[in-house]
Amino acid sequence: MGSLGPYQRKHKITVVGSGNWGCAIAKIVAENAASNPAIFEEKVEMWVFEEKVEISKDSRHYDPSSPLCQGPQNLTDVINQKHENIKYLPGITLPSNLHANPSLVDAVKDSTILVFNLPHQFIIKTCEQIKGKILPYARGISCIKGVDVNEEGIHLFSETIGKILGIYCGALSGANIASEVALEKWSESSIAYDPPHMDSKAPSPNPLPSDYPPVDHAVLKSLFHRPYFHIRVVSDVAGVSLGGALKNVVALAAGWVDGMGWGDNAKAAIMRVGLLEMVKFGEKFFGATINTRTFTEESAGVADLITSCSGGRNFRCAKLSIERKQSIEKVEETELNGQKLQGTLTAVEVNNFLKKQGLEEEFPLLTAVYRVLEGSMSVGDIPSYIER
Amino acid sequence: MGSLGPYQRKHKITVVGSGNWGCAIAKIVAENAASNPAIFEEKVEMWVFEEKVEISKDSRHYDPSSPLCQGPQNLTDVINQKHENIKYLPGITLPSNLHANPSLVDAVKDSTILVFNLPHQFIIKTCEQIKGKILPYARGISCIKGVDVNEEGIHLFSETIGKILGIYCGALSGANIASEVALEKWSESSIAYDPPHMDSKAPSPNPLPSDYPPVDHAVLKSLFHRPYFHIRVVSDVAGVSLGGALKNVVALAAGWVDGMGWGDNAKAAIMRVGLLEMVKFGEKFFGATINTRTFTEESAGVADLITSCSGGRNFRCAKLSIERKQSIEKVEETELNGQKLQGTLTAVEVNNFLKKQGLEEEFPLLTAVYRVLEGSMSVGDIPSYIER
Repeated sequence: MGSLGPYQRKHKITVVGSGNWGCAIAKIVAENAASNPAIFEEKVEMWVFEEKVEISKDSRHYDPSSPLCQGPQNLTDVINQKHENIKYLPGITLPSNLHANPSLVDAVKDSTILVFNLPHQFIIKTCEQIKGKILPYARGISCIKGVDVNEEGIHLFSETIGKILGIYCGALSGANIASEVALEKWSESSIAYDPPHMDSKAPSPNPLPSDYPPVDHAVLKSLFHRPYFHIRVVSDVAGVSLGGALKNVVALAAGWVDGMGWGDNAKAAIMRVGLLEMVKFGEKFFGATINTRTFTEESAGVADLITSCSGGRNFRCAKLSIERKQSIEKVEETELNGQKLQGTLTAVEVNNFLKKQGLEEEFPLLTAVYRVLEGSMSVGDIPSYIER
Repeated sequence: MGSLGPYQRKHKITVVGSGNWGCAIAKIVAENAASNPAIFEEKVEMWVFEEKVEISKDSRHYDPSSPLCQGPQNLTDVINQKHENIKYLPGITLPSNLHANPSLVDAVKDSTILVFNLPHQFIIKTCEQIKGKILPYARGISCIKGVDVNEEGIHLFSETIGKILGIYCGALSGANIASEVALEKWSESSIAYDPPHMDSKAPSPNPLPSDYPPVDHAVLKSLFHRPYFHIRVVSDVAGVSLGGALKNVVALAAGWVDGMGWGDNAKAAIMRVGLLEMVKFGEKFFGATINTRTFTEESAGVADLITSCSGGRNFRCAKLSIERKQSIEKVEETELNGQKLQGTLTAVEVNNFLKKQGLEEEFPLLTAVYRVLEGSMSVGDIPSYIER
């Protein structure tokens, strides 16, 4: 009997986070929970960091007689009554079986599958708050892009989550611009999930009671795959996570080159070299625990690189910095409301790590991006520097 | 002593063809011939299909007192005196050591390196005309993109040239839009060159007299590499050639998806699947004679795919066909002056070949493109068809 056979219990799902990507993923997960009643509980919880919002007079939800339209309201109340996150994903109707919950602890209680989707700087604090308050046999999926790099080494966010909570956590990443996914425009994504086997040396997660359907690749596909969101489930958590980090650094270089007006050939050349260095980085620092084909075959690899170098925010800001002859910090200020680009942070972190290893020269594009940011190299120097 | 050591004789270079890509490559080759006088003869020949052109009054070359401005003139005369191909590469100054020659036979005479750069439908006829009239130990480089596919099999244009002329011929392909290369915007390209070894079973080319520098990877790099045109020389002629053919088919699908307004995620997904099918096609039909890393690592692979899906003519016409709700033939008529897209031809040829092998289902994207062209599938069906 496969994992889709009849079981006495169903998986309860909680999405931790409710930004635009959090809501887009919560929408998918709630749609699938509703359409797979043999496996999932229909009601899906979404933890929302509570804040006050106001339904404006030109909103489709405005109704002067409704108490919800009398001044500032809780974001969770608006989501639960109007089925829309009017602040972070306006215009998109969320499924009615998705429940916005302002209590983090209550939202994750009794859930067997926890989907983490929040800015990476909040991961540790959020996990600390629910530590010991989740099912000991829960499983996690991290939708947080990238990796945590410092001089000492590279850590996957999924590992950080798993370690704090004492659970196994996989990763979802791919060529996914949240707004397009929310509009149900067709895209693909990768899920990496490979819990240690009972007989491996790594600590096994607490076994799931046998009255639940096992959390395997088929169940994860049932939870995340939609007609407009095609999922491939693989086992390479490191590859899927690393792709999501390094592509942002490459996207900066692609943006600069495009800003210089060097054309499509040059941009494609940058992306080619970037892909090569992603593969090499994986080989060098993750060895046999990574499958380098993840970079060239999966959505989280080459496709995410392509999307990010087409219209992602790292690409756009880098391009603007050349066109306006401004520093990238200046562009961040004016374009991102004070938010920081992921690519510039990652470029610095990766460079610290490579420098410590004495391996800057082996990754000329990653190194060149850092040096341009630092001011010791100009964009015009990139072609001759990476051509070796 | 390496190939750059002193030799008594120098290589004479001829470029066969003078369209926009032909002239862009001839410019590069002539620049390098001039700057490597130890290896190459300074004067580079370019065969030009003679036609009459007229220098217009608003041209920078117009001078009412010049005989060259009195009515229609030979294109070769204009090129040799004004150093510009005003018809096919207007605005670009060609090196003065590049000699336009209207006689094909005279242009190739005594040349040791022949660079073929003309539309593929003219290859056989052109080679037949110079058969037996070239140096028996000449070497060729084909800059003609793509491969010749029919029901029986797949033939490389470089092989066709080599076979007719009885010489060895390599291939150049990459992420190169001719106009950008001509403007000296930075780009990369791949050269594949791997003549049979003396001890292999394949017929060896006639040995080059030992008073010439051997035609090896270093010499080819000296001939084609420029500060703005970075060359990597590899041995995989089939991979380099196949990439240049199949990417055009993928670019049609990318154009349709973009025309549908499905966004960057969807376009990246098409390109990812396209790259996978290119690798699989190479593995399946070329086996050990191909290096599948060519597709994921070289300019002629992933980078050319990216460029072609960004702004190439196959992409643009496919996109327009959706936006205007016109057949692609209609768009060809209005946009291409009656020229045919390479992608549609290749899609049909590849499908005939796959059908004959009974392998359509194994290449769902290539097959879907054919079916959309044929009218038996709609663009909206592509995502579910390729997701298997």
